[in-house]
Amino acid sequence: MEEIKIFAPASVANVSCGFDVLGFCLSPVGDEMVLRKTAETGLRISKIEGQDLPMAVEKNVAGVAAQALLKAYAAPPSGFEIEIYKKIKPGSGIGSSAASAAGAVFGINELLGRPYSPKELIKFAMEGEKMASGTPHADNVAPVLLGGFTLVRCSSEPDVIKLPVPEELIATVIHPKIELKTAHARSVLKQQIALEDAISQWGNLAGLVSGLYENDYERISKCLVDKIVEPYRALLIPGFKELKTGAQDSGALGCGISGSGPSVYALSRGEKIAKSVADSFSEVLSKVGIDFETHISPINTQGIRILEER
Amino acid sequence: MEEIKIFAPASVANVSCGFDVLGFCLSPVGDEMVLRKTAETGLRISKIEGQDLPMAVEKNVAGVAAQALLKAYAAPPSGFEIEIYKKIKPGSGIGSSAASAAGAVFGINELLGRPYSPKELIKFAMEGEKMASGTPHADNVAPVLLGGFTLVRCSSEPDVIKLPVPEELIATVIHPKIELKTAHARSVLKQQIALEDAISQWGNLAGLVSGLYENDYERISKCLVDKIVEPYRALLIPGFKELKTGAQDSGALGCGISGSGPSVYALSRGEKIAKSVADSFSEVLSKVGIDFETHISPINTQGIRILEER
Repeated sequence: MEEIKIFAPASVANVSCGFDVLGFCLSPVGDEMVLRKTAETGLRISKIEGQDLPMAVEKNVAGVAAQALLKAYAAPPSGFEIEIYKKIKPGSGIGSSAASAAGAVFGINELLGRPYSPKELIKFAMEGEKMASGTPHADNVAPVLLGGFTLVRCSSEPDVIKLPVPEELIATVIHPKIELKTAHARSVLKQQIALEDAISQWGNLAGLVSGLYENDYERISKCLVDKIVEPYRALLIPGFKELKTGAQDSGALGCGISGSGPSVYALSRGEKIAKSVADSFSEVLSKVGIDFETHISPINTQGIRILEER
Repeated sequence: MEEIKIFAPASVANVSCGFDVLGFCLSPVGDEMVLRKTAETGLRISKIEGQDLPMAVEKNVAGVAAQALLKAYAAPPSGFEIEIYKKIKPGSGIGSSAASAAGAVFGINELLGRPYSPKELIKFAMEGEKMASGTPHADNVAPVLLGGFTLVRCSSEPDVIKLPVPEELIATVIHPKIELKTAHARSVLKQQIALEDAISQWGNLAGLVSGLYENDYERISKCLVDKIVEPYRALLIPGFKELKTGAQDSGALGCGISGSGPSVYALSRGEKIAKSVADSFSEVLSKVGIDFETHISPINTQGIRILEER
């Protein structure tokens, strides 16, 4: 294989009670990337469309992630170039950097004949995330590379568990087009939390995992609660309270902040409810006068995928 | 039915990463109780053997729990008396008060013709726990009443989830015969904890739940970690570090404090390892010169059970 074109999907991390550990992969929205073997050695980014992002390998999330893989692989048989057709807006909270990082390592791994498993690719992609946000986190790259819901049990020596996906689960995501820096969203977090709240959070996360295994939508709904982070970050998102109330009134199982915001996600049982949640989301932000985009998406159980190869 | 004799088993709560939410039920050790309809109305405790415990209904865990049920039921057709043959030592950390509380409500519910489901009995049994320790917690009464592993997702309006039990899982418990007050064990806990540690704890608990669903012993082993409570409470248990090292060296999947101690539990894959863990436990406490008891037990998936009825 000389060239591969891939689709690197968006993802939702920090799924309410699953702060910093749980994520899931979206279907319709994502970047496209072309990765190509080149005669000249080394790695270069040859084209970026859709966003104004650095072309220098060491300053680009995809470049850094790809470089991490190539460094570990030691003796690549050729050089590589990457074209990025960026559809996910950086800073939207649905894993824009993760899509680029995961896409780069996935594509190069394919061109090399798959020396690494999807799970092994996670740590390379995390290097891209580290460049983007300062910490090497896996909660977006994991669902992109593995598909479905993923649990990052441990991120220092990454240990990622793929969880089952109840079939009727549909995500609705609204991206309010305001700028919210991850660093700012991080700065509002308390570094010390009440033991009592933590117990409630891990009870809910454990219950949510059990709900995913048992296709128990009612249980999933009860558990989609976040007492730790949402109360602080919600204040940074215009209309969050109204968005959440709208989702609940429309019958969503749960609603929370996607990643570190400003996007807001909801999970619903069935597409009909997911659509009415999208309508309620649109109504709130239209009133506030903020530009936005909404996505309705089944959980993408496959994750990143090949569009063309030659 | 006029009279019922039941077996109310011991249980392990605070299962490492599952502090305050996760518990499991033991098989061989437990109390026996006889519950009987009486012509005279009201409730009395007619006999207690094995321990010196209060006979007054309102001062006895079993009495308080039974009273809570009878109050809710409103119009019991008769009076009741309870005989308690106490085998689990109070203060041992393997759910002595929970066995009494669960036994009382289970037995009376049977005599009444089962007006309540096992899950509904939990809130009555919790009243007994409240009398015993000051807080109405469900993490011991739930596994006794439901069997197996239970997750107390929420204890204020109790919501308890029964989790699957991998077949080869065997518990080893050692009870060092020292006195350790629950109140003291509670007092060493920090009421504020680091967000980072909490994230690690909920990642591990979520992973453990997934390991139980998937019979993945390696995953269960990785997740049996407690960064929040064990570091503090371990200091109250003589030889804890050596007990844990011994269990690990013997091949246990994990080892931690049972309840609020002083008992220590380990989980192993298969009886052979569980026995060698018991040997290593015994060796440590023999050296320290502390009297002890050990139990080797499959996870009791049935929970509380009827021995005789007439």
